[in-house]
Amino acid sequence: MVQMANVFSMRHFFVLSLALNVSFILRSVFEREQGLNWVGFESEKDQVTQRTRLSVSSSLSSITTLAEAQDSGERIINLDHGDPTMYEKYWQQMGDKTTVVIPGWQYMSYFSDISNICWFLEPEFAKQVVRLHKVVGNAVTDGRHIVVGTGSSQLYLAALFALSPSDASEPISVVSQAPYYSSYPSMTDCLKSGLYKWAGEAQNFSKEGPYIELVTSPNNPDGTARHSVVNRNKGILLHDLAYYWPQYTPISSPADHELMLFTVSKSTGHAGMRIGWAIVKDKEVAKRMTKFVELNTIGVSKDSQIRAAKVLKAVSDPYEHVDDSEVGETFFDFSYHSMAERWKLLREAVEHSGMFSLPKFPPAFCTFFNQVSEPRPAFAWLKCENDIEDCETFLRGHKILTRGGKHFGVGPMYVRVSMLDRDENFIRFVKRLSTIRV
Amino acid sequence: MVQMANVFSMRHFFVLSLALNVSFILRSVFEREQGLNWVGFESEKDQVTQRTRLSVSSSLSSITTLAEAQDSGERIINLDHGDPTMYEKYWQQMGDKTTVVIPGWQYMSYFSDISNICWFLEPEFAKQVVRLHKVVGNAVTDGRHIVVGTGSSQLYLAALFALSPSDASEPISVVSQAPYYSSYPSMTDCLKSGLYKWAGEAQNFSKEGPYIELVTSPNNPDGTARHSVVNRNKGILLHDLAYYWPQYTPISSPADHELMLFTVSKSTGHAGMRIGWAIVKDKEVAKRMTKFVELNTIGVSKDSQIRAAKVLKAVSDPYEHVDDSEVGETFFDFSYHSMAERWKLLREAVEHSGMFSLPKFPPAFCTFFNQVSEPRPAFAWLKCENDIEDCETFLRGHKILTRGGKHFGVGPMYVRVSMLDRDENFIRFVKRLSTIRV
Repeated sequence: MVQMANVFSMRHFFVLSLALNVSFILRSVFEREQGLNWVGFESEKDQVTQRTRLSVSSSLSSITTLAEAQDSGERIINLDHGDPTMYEKYWQQMGDKTTVVIPGWQYMSYFSDISNICWFLEPEFAKQVVRLHKVVGNAVTDGRHIVVGTGSSQLYLAALFALSPSDASEPISVVSQAPYYSSYPSMTDCLKSGLYKWAGEAQNFSKEGPYIELVTSPNNPDGTARHSVVNRNKGILLHDLAYYWPQYTPISSPADHELMLFTVSKSTGHAGMRIGWAIVKDKEVAKRMTKFVELNTIGVSKDSQIRAAKVLKAVSDPYEHVDDSEVGETFFDFSYHSMAERWKLLREAVEHSGMFSLPKFPPAFCTFFNQVSEPRPAFAWLKCENDIEDCETFLRGHKILTRGGKHFGVGPMYVRVSMLDRDENFIRFVKRLSTIRV
Repeated sequence: MVQMANVFSMRHFFVLSLALNVSFILRSVFEREQGLNWVGFESEKDQVTQRTRLSVSSSLSSITTLAEAQDSGERIINLDHGDPTMYEKYWQQMGDKTTVVIPGWQYMSYFSDISNICWFLEPEFAKQVVRLHKVVGNAVTDGRHIVVGTGSSQLYLAALFALSPSDASEPISVVSQAPYYSSYPSMTDCLKSGLYKWAGEAQNFSKEGPYIELVTSPNNPDGTARHSVVNRNKGILLHDLAYYWPQYTPISSPADHELMLFTVSKSTGHAGMRIGWAIVKDKEVAKRMTKFVELNTIGVSKDSQIRAAKVLKAVSDPYEHVDDSEVGETFFDFSYHSMAERWKLLREAVEHSGMFSLPKFPPAFCTFFNQVSEPRPAFAWLKCENDIEDCETFLRGHKILTRGGKHFGVGPMYVRVSMLDRDENFIRFVKRLSTIRV
C-alpha cells in the first residue's frame, strides 16, 4: 500500500475521477452525435435518415408504440446479419454496473495464467463462465477445460485443427445437417486445409472412415433442436451451442458433450468484444485448441476478456442475490420477454400478410424459468409461399435484406431473418412485412 | 442532450464516479496482491519468490541500483518470449492518461465503420495509427488502406491468404532469410494450406515461379536491417516492420512497401491487447485480408482497438504539443534510453564474461531523434564462444531460458534473448551472465 500511495496519491484519484467523468460525458455526447450506437449495417444515407428519426423513436416507451411509427417503405431494412444490437437497451438500463475501467499499464503481458493449459485465459473470465453455466444450468463444466477464443469462430477453427488427425493421408470430412450456418463452408475451406474439408449435408454423407459432424443446437438458421444425424462409430462431434440460452429456447438439461462452443455475441449481445469460449472434456484437445489460438493470434484480447467477465458477472449476480441494490429486470427476463414479444409480432405480421410461413416449435419445459414455453430463436427461418421461388430477391424488392436459403444448403424459398436488431428496425420490418401482398 | 439527461442524470454520474474509483482502487489492490503485473512467465514457485522480493526491488529507484541486488543463481530467468513488460513502468508513470472507461452498452455491434473496406476497423484507432506514423516518420500512410488484426500474427496469415493465387495448382512458396522469426514456419504450415507453404531459407530458394518473401526489418531475432534477398521478378514482398520504431533502430525514412505489418505489442508494449495493423497499398489485397479476418474471427476486439487508440494518442500528443499539462518523459525518450541502458549493460556483461559475443550494428542517422545512433534491438542475438555447441542448453544450465538458433533456421551456437522484460529480471540476467566462465 505504501507503493500504491506513491504511485497514486489521493490527488491522483480525484483528478482521475474528474477525468473519467469528463471523458465519459464527452464520449456519450460524441457517440450520440455520431449515432454510432444507433445505426444498423446500412448505407450512409440510411444512417443519416435514421439519426434524424432517433429523436422521435428513442423517446417512445414501448415496442408496441414504436409499431405505430410511419414506414414509407423506402428505407432499407437490413436483417441479413445477426448483429445483436437489441441488447444495447438492456445494458443501457444497467447504467454503470458493467462499466470497465482499465489503466494503461494493465494487461500488457501476453500471459494470463501460465498454470492453465489455456495460458491466455483470464482467470476472472473463466470463473464467470463457469458460474453463469451453473446459474443457467445449460452446460456441464465440472472437470472440463475452458479455452477462450476471439469469438466462437476462432474456436470453431481451433476445434477443427484439434480434432483432425494430423497424420491422415487426406483431409477429414466436416459435415452438418442442412440448413446449416452459412459461414461454416467458407470458414472450413478458406485456406484449402490438408487437415479438414467441408463435405456438406450430413444426411447425405456416406463416406467410410472418420468425420467431424457439426451439431448446432438450437440451429442457426432455423432454430430447431438438433442431434447428430450421421451416427456412425467413427464420428467426432462438435457442438455449437451459441444459442442454447433461456431467451431463445427452453433449457432441458445441462449439455454434456465432448466439445461445446459458446459466445458472448449471442448470450449477452456483446458481438464487438469478439469473445467466445469452448468447454472441452479431453485435455489433449484443449491443448491443441490452445496451440491453434497461439499460432493464429497469440492469445485473445485481455481487455475484452475482462469486460466480458464483468458482463457475465452482472448477468449472474441477481440470480445469486449477490447484489441487493436495485437490480431492475434480470437479463434473462428482459431478453426472454423481448424475444417473446418479437415472435408474437412476427407471427401476427406473417398471418396478416398471408405470403409467408414460419416453423412451428413444440413447447417444452425450461428448467431455468421453471415453466413450459416455446422456443424463440434468434433468427426467423421464413418461407415464401404462393409460388415465390426466390424469397431473398422477393424481399429485396421490398427493401428488406435477408440471407437466402442457398447459403444454408437448402432452397431459395427460405430466408434467414435476424430477430436481434434494434427495436426501431425490427418494428419497421414486421410492419412492412405485414403489408406485403401478392 | 434531453435524451441523455433522461438516461444519465447527474446522480448517475456521481454514483458512477464513486463506483469507478472504488472499482479502480479495489482492482489495484487486487492486482498488487495477486502479483499479476509483476510476475514473469515462470514456475509457480518462482512467482511466489518473486512476489516476496518485490517489496525490496520495486522500491529501488534506478536500474543501476537494481543491479546491486543479490542473485543466488537459483531463480529461473525466462527470456525465451518477447513479453514486453519493460514498458509497464512507463505507463504506470503516465497515471490516468491512458485509462479507458467502457460502459457495458457500448461497442456491442460487429460493425465499426461500414463505409470502410475494413468494416471492423474503429475509426479512432485508424486515425491514431496514421497520426503516429506521421509523428515518427516510419511509414507512408497516404492513400493506403489500414487493416486491423488480432495482433500482427493474424495479419501475417491474412496477408498470406490475400497474396496467394487462389487458382494455383500448388501452394505458393513462402521464404525468408535466416535467421527468421521462429513462429513463421509453424504459423504458415499449421493447417497444411493448399494456398501457401513454408519453403524456408530465402537465400537457398531457387524454384521458378511466384513466391512470397518475408522481410522482417529490423529482423527478429538478430536486429539487422533487412531487404529482400531473392530478387526475382515474380516475388511478392511482405514486410514485417514490428520493430521499426525509434527505440529499437534509427528511422532512416518512411517505409514505403506494398504491405507492411505493425503491432502495439512491440511499439508501445501492449501485447495483451492483441492489436496489430497492416498498411496496404493495393485495394484488392486489403479486401482479401479483411475477408480473411472476417472468416477467421469476424473482426477484431473493439475494446482493445479503443484502448490502443488511447495509448497511441498518448504517445503522439506530446510531440504535437496537444497536451500542455505535465507530460513528463515522452514515450520514445523513455524507451530509447531504457534500450540504450540495457544494451550497454548487456555488452558490459558479455565482455566481463568472455564466453559470448553479440552482433555489432553500424550507427546511422535517425530522422526522428535527429541524431546518429546505433540500433538497440528488442532481442539480443547472443553467440556462445569457446566451442560451446549448444548455447540454449548451456544457458539453461545456468537457469537462463532463451530460444536456440535452430528455431530460427540457423545453428545451435546462437540464442535469442528478450531485451524487453521487467527491470528486475533483466538486471538479474546481465548480472548472472557476466559471471559465467568456462
